[in-house]
Amino acid sequence: MRFAFFGDVVGRAGRDAVSEHLPFVRRALDLEFVIVNAENAASGFGVSENTANQLFEAGADCLTLGNHSWDQKEALTYIVREPRLIRPLNYPPLADVPGRGVNLFETASGKRILVMNALGLVHMASMDDPFAAVDKALESAPLGLVADAVVVDIHAEATSEKMAMGHFCDGRASLVVGTHTHVPTADAQILPGGTAYQTDAGACADYDSVIGMDKEEPLRRFTTRIGKERYKPASGPATLCGVFVETDDKTGLATRVEPIRLGGRLKTVLPELQVSV
Amino acid sequence: MRFAFFGDVVGRAGRDAVSEHLPFVRRALDLEFVIVNAENAASGFGVSENTANQLFEAGADCLTLGNHSWDQKEALTYIVREPRLIRPLNYPPLADVPGRGVNLFETASGKRILVMNALGLVHMASMDDPFAAVDKALESAPLGLVADAVVVDIHAEATSEKMAMGHFCDGRASLVVGTHTHVPTADAQILPGGTAYQTDAGACADYDSVIGMDKEEPLRRFTTRIGKERYKPASGPATLCGVFVETDDKTGLATRVEPIRLGGRLKTVLPELQVSV
Amino acid sequence: MRFAFFGDVVGRAGRDAVSEHLPFVRRALDLEFVIVNAENAASGFGVSENTANQLFEAGADCLTLGNHSWDQKEALTYIVREPRLIRPLNYPPLADVPGRGVNLFETASGKRILVMNALGLVHMASMDDPFAAVDKALESAPLGLVADAVVVDIHAEATSEKMAMGHFCDGRASLVVGTHTHVPTADAQILPGGTAYQTDAGACADYDSVIGMDKEEPLRRFTTRIGKERYKPASGPATLCGVFVETDDKTGLATRVEPIRLGGRLKTVLPELQVSV
Amino acid sequence: MRFAFFGDVVGRAGRDAVSEHLPFVRRALDLEFVIVNAENAASGFGVSENTANQLFEAGADCLTLGNHSWDQKEALTYIVREPRLIRPLNYPPLADVPGRGVNLFETASGKRILVMNALGLVHMASMDDPFAAVDKALESAPLGLVADAVVVDIHAEATSEKMAMGHFCDGRASLVVGTHTHVPTADAQILPGGTAYQTDAGACADYDSVIGMDKEEPLRRFTTRIGKERYKPASGPATLCGVFVETDDKTGLATRVEPIRLGGRLKTVLPELQVSV
Ligand SMILES: [Fe+2]
Ligand SMILES: [Fe+2]
Ligand SMILES: [Fe+2]
Ligand SMILES: [Fe+2]
Ligand SMILES: [Fe+2]
Ligand SMILES: [Fe+2]
Ligand SMILES: [Fe+2]
Ligand SMILES: [Fe+2]
Repeated sequence: MRFAFFGDVVGRAGRDAVSEHLPFVRRALDLEFVIVNAENAASGFGVSENTANQLFEAGADCLTLGNHSWDQKEALTYIVREPRLIRPLNYPPLADVPGRGVNLFETASGKRILVMNALGLVHMASMDDPFAAVDKALESAPLGLVADAVVVDIHAEATSEKMAMGHFCDGRASLVVGTHTHVPTADAQILPGGTAYQTDAGACADYDSVIGMDKEEPLRRFTTRIGKERYKPASGPATLCGVFVETDDKTGLATRVEPIRLGGRLKTVLPELQVSV
Repeated sequence: MRFAFFGDVVGRAGRDAVSEHLPFVRRALDLEFVIVNAENAASGFGVSENTANQLFEAGADCLTLGNHSWDQKEALTYIVREPRLIRPLNYPPLADVPGRGVNLFETASGKRILVMNALGLVHMASMDDPFAAVDKALESAPLGLVADAVVVDIHAEATSEKMAMGHFCDGRASLVVGTHTHVPTADAQILPGGTAYQTDAGACADYDSVIGMDKEEPLRRFTTRIGKERYKPASGPATLCGVFVETDDKTGLATRVEPIRLGGRLKTVLPELQVSV
Repeated sequence: MRFAFFGDVVGRAGRDAVSEHLPFVRRALDLEFVIVNAENAASGFGVSENTANQLFEAGADCLTLGNHSWDQKEALTYIVREPRLIRPLNYPPLADVPGRGVNLFETASGKRILVMNALGLVHMASMDDPFAAVDKALESAPLGLVADAVVVDIHAEATSEKMAMGHFCDGRASLVVGTHTHVPTADAQILPGGTAYQTDAGACADYDSVIGMDKEEPLRRFTTRIGKERYKPASGPATLCGVFVETDDKTGLATRVEPIRLGGRLKTVLPELQVSV
Repeated sequence: MRFAFFGDVVGRAGRDAVSEHLPFVRRALDLEFVIVNAENAASGFGVSENTANQLFEAGADCLTLGNHSWDQKEALTYIVREPRLIRPLNYPPLADVPGRGVNLFETASGKRILVMNALGLVHMASMDDPFAAVDKALESAPLGLVADAVVVDIHAEATSEKMAMGHFCDGRASLVVGTHTHVPTADAQILPGGTAYQTDAGACADYDSVIGMDKEEPLRRFTTRIGKERYKPASGPATLCGVFVETDDKTGLATRVEPIRLGGRLKTVLPELQVSV
């Protein structure tokens, strides 16, 4: 099975890069499932029904979120009726948060793929333990038995926590991939137990920016400590950033993991095409 | 001018990767200057005279540090007599910290290269403003006038702060490169003003690990919150991780920036060789 | 019912203040139960069997802990056989931490008092939600039905989180009292629902110090950012710091809450004595 | 010389408590100078010209600020023409922040009192070193030589940093007092070198709240992690919270330090009146 995961889509520039490049990439790589992190899709902060729809139309099968899940208040009700939207799964018991933190999807060909989203704790707002929550979700649909593929989006700041999550899931997930830092890492690898791993998928954003945002205001705040305006997404051409994974159909473990980067300022990298396009 | 910067060397595995691969890389890429971040060279924590010497012998011309500068107490006296060791430059005025945070080196061919090391503030222990400190250091030896090349090692956690530092120095430095997260990023680019930039050089470390450390103890702490042993560096084959830069001899600005990754678990990436080896 | 709670005992000076003053205070205030936070009892870091015994001998019926619970490794086994030692209750499910986070004690006269210890999240190492964990513990032995008194030690940095915990438990606990900051607050009050509250009990420590520690090393680190020695507890005369509570025997709610401070540098404050001594 | 310092005034309730109680307190204690922290005076966030004027009219001679200094944008221009408004003094050099971080005031009787405001670093947004900045300000008008009294408002979260600042200034200031946590501490003392010290002055606020804010929204956020509304100041009767200091006229060092708490839910504490009222 071939699938791909794309990192945080930032604002219009990010959405437009998805619209422009994803249909080609999906076809070229013969992808059976596509996951996109959408926590910054709406003006850089959260996701709305409209911005989600643009991503679905471009070829996303499922959208994950993060610490910005609810920046657009409508997401709190939209998620109730949209099972393709996955929010972090490690809220505390009293949160009574709407939506799902994990879902088992069925692809067109009948494959089942489990997708979950977890918030890291290091340098992040506090949440309940993501390791325990992921553990429970992994046990709910074991890879190779119930699920044909399992994807863990670990939305976290610290590389240490993300790498630890990779090892924690190794052998139980097809892919553990980080999001949130908005910069792709160059460490795609298959871990010893067979799980594909990359510390961060990178943002679908304009890279002449500060993590996808117009650089003027962040620079002002870093140097003067006094803000003047809201952050707004940078509007130059964005780079589609993600990870391509191929799994063994029997075990669900990864046989191949490679970065995808297309458009904008970053150097283009695509898995060698396996199919005629 | 061609030079390279390599990220945090972690323990013996990291040092051995430097010893094994750097001589070849230096020759193959015809490097005139080599900078290595050594803050984790000694057992993963700090640098000692012995571990520094191993890196110098492998071909490093200059070593930068970070938040772990003084984990080995001998570094506080060693740095006084070793001008090739550069510690963070943004200590507060009362610190009276030994050593230098910036230095102007002369290469064999008589080129002058300014190297500085700054600690970020976001999610890090507090220090004085790195932007103001870097600004002052940049003014001390302007690129293209006094310095033939200027390298800023921004040792920081947050991608936002590192990208902001890139833009802050854009046009005034040959390279702004991040260290500290121990994972290479895939965003090498030349910024609009001519400064080469990569968010993190990546660690020279075993990548079957948690940021270069044996994974057992970090996993225990993440899942149980109770530590049992000290962290120790992972001991599998390490990947040499860094950035190659070529500059315009007149302006000192970058004409080329490319990642270098060699050995260990990560996929090998080398700039196309320019010289016969 | 009359009981008292005393905050973080720091090192020998703190233990000696407990030994010197607690017997008198217990007798003078006719206390039926005494709780002492012991997370810094052993050389300022953690608790050992010996240091716990000194506090029990001085009149403590129960000891609570905090973020320093396991600084002395022996505490991990000691707590298994010592039911009077209470560690934080909001560890994540995978922690499998030894000991108890809540316990129902019986006093000499047959009263039942529920004592729990929770770690805050704001500016603290991450733990699972303390509000959910406290909620569950409160439901396990409802005040006025199962428990004659309920005491919540909220070991936290932020005043906001502690005040929020007070209101969260209001009407369900006899006392919510903070620990961890090592400075007594002057805000003892009975909340609208009948729960006694004080943001921090204060440390049993020498107040010519930095939160109970000899001031030289903290001052060095604050001004220079480079440590030289381990922290060691200050050794001047310590102040016994705590909170006195009287409850309604039927409801278990508080009818009186007053600070206790005795010895050392802080001004002596004692509830007006109710009994002849 | 007798003066007083009052902690963070929160919203209308806080301002009204100042208006109601400060005139009496000023007269009763024969205060020659009154300093009030006003960083939360305007709807809980920042200060405006109108809210500042209410405090000046009630008897404040000088207002200090904190991390909320600029929440009301008008404060950035207001401070330029109002020398009685003191903002934090440890901004980095590139900040070019308006206003003053320290000022030497003259009282009606011709006494000179130096007032400064510094932001702590622990668990706070990053700023340049407050110890170095305070050191420089202290040297600018030495106590007993240039200044008859020196007051340091250390606006900080951590008790450790505040106590360290107390010792750092001991013998060079009349009073070091903390603000920011919005809860008064019960540790007023004269340090060995003669400086009066209290870790936090406490807020002038309604204490049936979460640090002066209406408790509903903070409780929601703590338990569910999802916000619904803005914070708004609690509107019940507020407690005037501060510190009274008497100094030796020759040395400027403290001879007396006592808490002031009046009105609202906290127990009234006033220095024994020295003058007939
Ligand atoms: Fe994001
Ligand atoms: Fe995020
Ligand atoms: Fe490092
Ligand atoms: Fe580091
Ligand atoms: Fe403590
Ligand atoms: Fe603590
Ligand atoms: Fe405040
Ligand atoms: Fe504040």
